[in-house]
Amino acid sequence: MADRMYRVNMTDLTVKTEDVPEQWAGLGGRGLTSTIVAAEVPPTCHPLGPDNKLVFAPGLLSGTVTANSGRLSVGAKSPLTGTIKESNAGGTASQQLAKLGIKALIIEGQPEKDAWYSLHVTADGVTISEEPGLTGKGNFAVVNAMVERHGDRTGVISIGPAGEMKMAVANISVKDPEGKVRSAGRGGLGAVMGSKRVKCIAVNVPREAAVPIAEPEKFKTAVRVFARALQEHPVSGQGLPTYGTSVLINVINEAGGLPTRNFRYGQFEHHDNISGETMHDLIEKRGGKTRHGCHMGCVIQCSQIFNDANGKYKTSGFEYESIWAMGADCCVDDLDQIAEADSLMDDIGVDTIETSVTMGVAMEGGLLPFGDGAGILRILDQDVRRGTPLGRLIGSGAGAVGKAYGVTRVPVVKNQAIPAYDPRAVKGIGITYCTSTMGADHTAGYAVATNILKVGGDVDPLKKEGQVELSRNLQIATAALDSAGLCIFVAFPALDIPEAFTAIVDMINARFGISLTADDVTELGKNILRTEHQFNLAAGFTNKDDRLPEFFSREELPPHNVVWDFTGEEIDEFWNF
Amino acid sequence: MADRMYRVNMTDLTVKTEDVPEQWAGLGGRGLTSTIVAAEVPPTCHPLGPDNKLVFAPGLLSGTVTANSGRLSVGAKSPLTGTIKESNAGGTASQQLAKLGIKALIIEGQPEKDAWYSLHVTADGVTISEEPGLTGKGNFAVVNAMVERHGDRTGVISIGPAGEMKMAVANISVKDPEGKVRSAGRGGLGAVMGSKRVKCIAVNVPREAAVPIAEPEKFKTAVRVFARALQEHPVSGQGLPTYGTSVLINVINEAGGLPTRNFRYGQFEHHDNISGETMHDLIEKRGGKTRHGCHMGCVIQCSQIFNDANGKYKTSGFEYESIWAMGADCCVDDLDQIAEADSLMDDIGVDTIETSVTMGVAMEGGLLPFGDGAGILRILDQDVRRGTPLGRLIGSGAGAVGKAYGVTRVPVVKNQAIPAYDPRAVKGIGITYCTSTMGADHTAGYAVATNILKVGGDVDPLKKEGQVELSRNLQIATAALDSAGLCIFVAFPALDIPEAFTAIVDMINARFGISLTADDVTELGKNILRTEHQFNLAAGFTNKDDRLPEFFSREELPPHNVVWDFTGEEIDEFWNF
Repeated sequence: MADRMYRVNMTDLTVKTEDVPEQWAGLGGRGLTSTIVAAEVPPTCHPLGPDNKLVFAPGLLSGTVTANSGRLSVGAKSPLTGTIKESNAGGTASQQLAKLGIKALIIEGQPEKDAWYSLHVTADGVTISEEPGLTGKGNFAVVNAMVERHGDRTGVISIGPAGEMKMAVANISVKDPEGKVRSAGRGGLGAVMGSKRVKCIAVNVPREAAVPIAEPEKFKTAVRVFARALQEHPVSGQGLPTYGTSVLINVINEAGGLPTRNFRYGQFEHHDNISGETMHDLIEKRGGKTRHGCHMGCVIQCSQIFNDANGKYKTSGFEYESIWAMGADCCVDDLDQIAEADSLMDDIGVDTIETSVTMGVAMEGGLLPFGDGAGILRILDQDVRRGTPLGRLIGSGAGAVGKAYGVTRVPVVKNQAIPAYDPRAVKGIGITYCTSTMGADHTAGYAVATNILKVGGDVDPLKKEGQVELSRNLQIATAALDSAGLCIFVAFPALDIPEAFTAIVDMINARFGISLTADDVTELGKNILRTEHQFNLAAGFTNKDDRLPEFFSREELPPHNVVWDFTGEEIDEFWNF
Repeated sequence: MADRMYRVNMTDLTVKTEDVPEQWAGLGGRGLTSTIVAAEVPPTCHPLGPDNKLVFAPGLLSGTVTANSGRLSVGAKSPLTGTIKESNAGGTASQQLAKLGIKALIIEGQPEKDAWYSLHVTADGVTISEEPGLTGKGNFAVVNAMVERHGDRTGVISIGPAGEMKMAVANISVKDPEGKVRSAGRGGLGAVMGSKRVKCIAVNVPREAAVPIAEPEKFKTAVRVFARALQEHPVSGQGLPTYGTSVLINVINEAGGLPTRNFRYGQFEHHDNISGETMHDLIEKRGGKTRHGCHMGCVIQCSQIFNDANGKYKTSGFEYESIWAMGADCCVDDLDQIAEADSLMDDIGVDTIETSVTMGVAMEGGLLPFGDGAGILRILDQDVRRGTPLGRLIGSGAGAVGKAYGVTRVPVVKNQAIPAYDPRAVKGIGITYCTSTMGADHTAGYAVATNILKVGGDVDPLKKEGQVELSRNLQIATAALDSAGLCIFVAFPALDIPEAFTAIVDMINARFGISLTADDVTELGKNILRTEHQFNLAAGFTNKDDRLPEFFSREELPPHNVVWDFTGEEIDEFWNF
């Protein structure tokens, strides 16, 4: 089936099938969502108004047997940052959409009627139905309802109550192979879906559906080389599978860059209680699973099944970022409380990073004491879920809570919460936070790899030298990876093992019967960044927005007692490419 | 006594006396506050951090016998808008500071200690005292405490609990001749004062103190011409004294530009219940005062003493903007409820425009029903005053509440609430909202005068022609007037009666023994605007911020069924001078 795009107009509840314009044929994932948003969304429009569009696009390699290629990109203008946004997630939908030959699903307009809708995507097209029964339901209930209606193999993309309420912290959930959810977490894209009044999207694919491969032999060879590299690299082959992403708790704590007590310290005295090692032992003791993939074909298996003290399922996809944010940043050292919060946040449909950093800022503002895990759980369940005024405030994100409480120590860039690496102690990631087109985002150019993990070279995390170039190269490469539908963790082998990077280019070429060079891939990454940057400039952003909050320059971070010492001019060098 | 400036450093609790730099000698009021802020405050600093400065400056004519010259300018970087800000108020402090020869009082830095302070300004200088007893007190209690401590004639500048909590809606109050308060309302300057931990400033002036007049005879003549013009002009001589500023309720309603139900309609069906005429009759019936000045030497007397149904004092300075905002915009048609809210807001220390428009947005978001005056009173007293989460949210202003509730109809420019004239039906004021350096502000260039009241010419309010030029001329003139310490209402005679404008120039010349021309005054106005605009650009603002929210272009406003139809290019023409 030839690739096509669906355009769902929620104003008049119609669906159009469109051919893929020739100039977009070589794009997928983030490359495609950002290109469509930049081409069709007025940069100054209200993110929750009818002019914004929500674009779903599987990556170029999604739906194939390529390891770790099942990421789904979601794009729009962000209600949290006001910038262009792409957020991606695992789960099954990316592979399913790709198998249906769907290059992009574009949701536009806004219904007049005060009703909620679902979309059903099949080989026959897209249908829109009114969905009166799911209003207010959490993501787990929505997934269950869709599975009940359409069968086990149904893919589901959904929003929880937070998305319905158009909270800026609302994410978009994607059902994973176990029927749990993965999240396109950042930037409040769930609020955009809510503004379109789409509660969920169900996807069904015929068993025989497959993406066509132009050169199957060449493809198969490259797939093997790539998978082997993933398994050989110590980070993707050992660290992540064994301890999950929270292997980083002890690593980053040791490096003095684990933001603690709302970014006041670089080490958390109770780090051992929330570390990947502790989690690993607890999972084994309670009969969970230490290895688990967020989508079919994942060979890294950094997810896990985390059970409670009674051996009952509590959460999965229990990530370093989530554990750090409620753990070290809010000084909560009880992994079970954090797991409970993780599950609640998944169900309510809010970004764990933004929401937990928001709690840390609220703690600094005096709303509740640092360490009050029970208080966080109560606010999540009773306030955020129900949309009380306090829930609405927390749901507005860290920047808003900082303003409401007159807090000057608010860790955001472009109003998006800074994630789990203090930029004073890991300066390369600080450059990424500043310059990312999407607000503070570690995944946009994960300089932690080279600063701390010594992957792809060794750049001293505490010095300024080399950081701008490092972040630039990583951001360019990441934009390309995000277009392929590849998990960001493939960057570890891709940075260290030359054959792994070559294999990625080979797989794309073999999939489409084209002959891209490594330089072409770099050029693709650069073009994506330029397109996104141009959108932001047209939306009114300037280089003044590419800065960290002033407290990072003013306050020394223990234990290294370092400050953020880049000048504006040095940061602006980033865009010289 | 030679003019001087006091610099109060709240970090080390020291006070320095400084000569006035020569290039600032010809500046006063807004001209001086904006110049000092632009020269000394880093444009990208956190408004509540130690780098922001709070500057008080009496106008060039303040302290003299010039009619209506008692406005006090307050400047800083605004926590609400992020722009440079000047807000001015009546009351007694401006004249007192001028009589002490104080050109500017600059408060800078921030104490480490968790304590509150008061300043005492006398002929001997400025002293700083710790002030443990006033924490959490409302403005009325603070004024009473200062009068008790320093005597009846004490001037007081203070913040209420909102300013202590650093709410973005917090204002700065200035004691008036009756011991009630007037407000430098807009832009959250009370939060800046709170961030410096200055609860209040008391001012005492020797009875014999007077500002020196270089050419007394010339001055006296001009003063007389000016006062006569104020009394002769129908708006300043009759409309405002008789009905107060809320004479405008019926006028603007008739013009179809009275924003109603969160800017959904241009007329309020219950306008008669809240009109200036109704208020006038009620005041007479209840034994209040229909005429009252906010400072000594006011000949317009647009204020009033409004008593409750039992003839007991309820509020004064009961303005059109406040009555409109809680009245038409929130659909509350009970003048007593509005008066109660006005009094509460004065005491808590919040801007009546921002706070009430915020309530309208909250009503649109479903927090409480339109028309629920009792609900507003309850939220003000129980939530805003106490800083509950709901109070903190409301205290963040209309933009924040719009985001929290996912409302797209949020009437703000540069995050400041749009005041009482719908820009679709009064297009000239729309240009002022867009281009004012301070966010939506009717006082920055009151085009309503020429659009609706036909003062200073006649420009059709519903057409685009001539509006940019009108707003530009008014904004330039207003910047100059705001530097003289003159009440904005002197603009009515100044626009219509040539001798009135000449008299203003003559008074300034005679006061200082200089020889400015009318062109010099215009040039002063232009320079102030350029200085402010430059600050904003350096803070990261662009022409994309000089725009109205998109719903004004999308929704027709009844009864004229007009939309906002200016292009960006047309608006940007404003800055061509």
